[in-house]
Amino acid sequence: MTATLIRQVRLSGDQESRDILIEGNKITRIEPHIPLPSGAILQEGHHRLVLPGFIDGHAHIDKSLWGMDWYENQVPRELPAIIENERNFRRQQEFDSRQQSERIARLAIAKGTTHIRTHIDVDTEIGLKHMEGVLATRDKLADQVYIETVCFPQSGMLGRPGTRALMEEAVKLGADYVGGIDPSSFERDPVAHIDAIFEIAARYGKGVDLHLHEAAELGAFSVELMIERTLALGLQGKVTISHAFCLGEVDPAYQDRLIEGLAKANIAIATTAPANRSVPPYEKLRAAGIRVTAGNDGIRDTWSPYGNADMLQRAMLMGLKYRWRQDKELEQALHAITYGGAEVMGLKDYGLAVGCQADLVLLDARVVAEAIVEPPLARTVFKAGKLVADRGECLF
Amino acid sequence: MTATLIRQVRLSGDQESRDILIEGNKITRIEPHIPLPSGAILQEGHHRLVLPGFIDGHAHIDKSLWGMDWYENQVPRELPAIIENERNFRRQQEFDSRQQSERIARLAIAKGTTHIRTHIDVDTEIGLKHMEGVLATRDKLADQVYIETVCFPQSGMLGRPGTRALMEEAVKLGADYVGGIDPSSFERDPVAHIDAIFEIAARYGKGVDLHLHEAAELGAFSVELMIERTLALGLQGKVTISHAFCLGEVDPAYQDRLIEGLAKANIAIATTAPANRSVPPYEKLRAAGIRVTAGNDGIRDTWSPYGNADMLQRAMLMGLKYRWRQDKELEQALHAITYGGAEVMGLKDYGLAVGCQADLVLLDARVVAEAIVEPPLARTVFKAGKLVADRGECLF
Repeated sequence: MTATLIRQVRLSGDQESRDILIEGNKITRIEPHIPLPSGAILQEGHHRLVLPGFIDGHAHIDKSLWGMDWYENQVPRELPAIIENERNFRRQQEFDSRQQSERIARLAIAKGTTHIRTHIDVDTEIGLKHMEGVLATRDKLADQVYIETVCFPQSGMLGRPGTRALMEEAVKLGADYVGGIDPSSFERDPVAHIDAIFEIAARYGKGVDLHLHEAAELGAFSVELMIERTLALGLQGKVTISHAFCLGEVDPAYQDRLIEGLAKANIAIATTAPANRSVPPYEKLRAAGIRVTAGNDGIRDTWSPYGNADMLQRAMLMGLKYRWRQDKELEQALHAITYGGAEVMGLKDYGLAVGCQADLVLLDARVVAEAIVEPPLARTVFKAGKLVADRGECLF
Repeated sequence: MTATLIRQVRLSGDQESRDILIEGNKITRIEPHIPLPSGAILQEGHHRLVLPGFIDGHAHIDKSLWGMDWYENQVPRELPAIIENERNFRRQQEFDSRQQSERIARLAIAKGTTHIRTHIDVDTEIGLKHMEGVLATRDKLADQVYIETVCFPQSGMLGRPGTRALMEEAVKLGADYVGGIDPSSFERDPVAHIDAIFEIAARYGKGVDLHLHEAAELGAFSVELMIERTLALGLQGKVTISHAFCLGEVDPAYQDRLIEGLAKANIAIATTAPANRSVPPYEKLRAAGIRVTAGNDGIRDTWSPYGNADMLQRAMLMGLKYRWRQDKELEQALHAITYGGAEVMGLKDYGLAVGCQADLVLLDARVVAEAIVEPPLARTVFKAGKLVADRGECLF
């Protein structure tokens, strides 16, 4: 069994540095001074800050254009037009979802990401090509990053016959979650859409992760329907609502009732903390015991040119959006990109403690807040005890 | 006269690279191929993108804690408490505004900033210490960056006797603009506050730049008062309203009337594009001929831990806030950190054209949009024809 001794790193909140011993894929000791076991690899920590591996709770690694020719974005603002533009793009040129998902995964790993939940387009034109591409990347990089998958009917399901069958095929192929998209504003039939995806999830013993961009009361109605079905089908703990801008747009009393329902159904929330939209009320959600994860969403794709796979940058954007300036407040942003994501993924052995899987990031920052407001680039990353990135570069 | 030939750089929109000849502090030729004049310095452009020097139109370089011990932020959200906390901080420890303003200026220069408008605290406790510190930095770095100054009554003027006299002293010392702050919500007397600062400005032939955080109709009333006084005192073209969240918060018809008034009075707007507040309607302002600049605001001070002096990061935050995803839209963000700032500062010879002052940034990006969404670090910066930074590091 391989062992690694990380010598003298600082855990957040500690004044003094400590040693961390990794044996196999686990953290087995965290103590002020641990003698180097014979045969163990020595990694000098240089009193750097050590954080648990970052978790991207909402990604689209199947569709990034990273590393390709620059894509000149001329896309209108309306959701149906954006989606149609993307389908047109794919008709006009070859797109290799396997290659592109690996590129983004490697970029993410170099920045300290050890876990990704990615939505993967499934439609009647590309079929399961993107699913197959991402699953190949998932298997290829299984020792470097944990990837869970959501089959995602990006182009809609109700109006495109054949999509529902493809979603089932995607689940059989290995999707961990059944995805969905704006049941009213895009799919035009909230009950039919939500019933369809919950039905597949329940039948195959999978979870649900639905993209909800709908505003205010319209979005809130979708939230209500999802709460009802989660409870009815016994899917508590297995459902996530992504974006959920509406939770930040309804009046406080209604917001409280929705939060109560989400807590009862143990539904999680994924946010990207967009600057241009309302965001779910983070503190209120957490106070109600609701699990909250953060995600980088699409990175440099036909939707948007933004993003670089850095979850610390996402934490910064989250801090700016929620106006978190206090050090204590910024630790909430770290929580969202670490433990919050682990709760949403249901990871049992995640964290910086003895017995946990050794997923670690070492970086040069005095405190967590500094790592968030000015993310240091030269990161050293361990995945399940194995050194996967150093000085901000993938080692494989 | 020193001459520099920059060989083969790409101007935005060009397919082919061109040579730029700098003689003295001016751009004298921009052509496909220029022979190296004898005695001229050769700078290889390597087909990098060349942009005009960045302009930070709203800074607080007098109060940054950059390079000092980490400041643990525990500050409440209310403006008066934040300001009181800052005064307490200064009572408890020595703070060297000259040193700190130089640190931020150097950081900014390394990132391509060639012009800064900075607000400088003036109050009855620190007196003119910060003014003197920043003016010393301005003079010391006069060949590397252009700094214009706003004397800023951060702690209020009306309730703190002696502040108005200090503001006058600051103007005599060299402040280019008279600053102000929330006339109603903070100063508690909009007419008295606005009259006071406009009176000093008019008497000394200076401009005005007022911090307006006031919300919706309250802020809009301050805007109205400022329009009236700008017209009455003939200060058209010399007044800026910073932040002006209120312009994004009133109903469209009232917004239109305010914009009409701002245009008539030729009042400029400075924005930091905050994720957590409304923003002035950029497109509508520009369409009405109103000058708009962007700024980094405070960088890592007792107010907020964010910021790194990079105007390209500010452009990115602006793009995220305004939901600019198209390449053409993102060029507006570049405009705000370049030509928009130049218009607000009234610079006559700014730009990437023959006859302009040679303030240039060379960086590795295919297009402007790419430079904004993933700001490259290794920048080469010329100020008034002189190489001041290379590979992202100051050369002095």
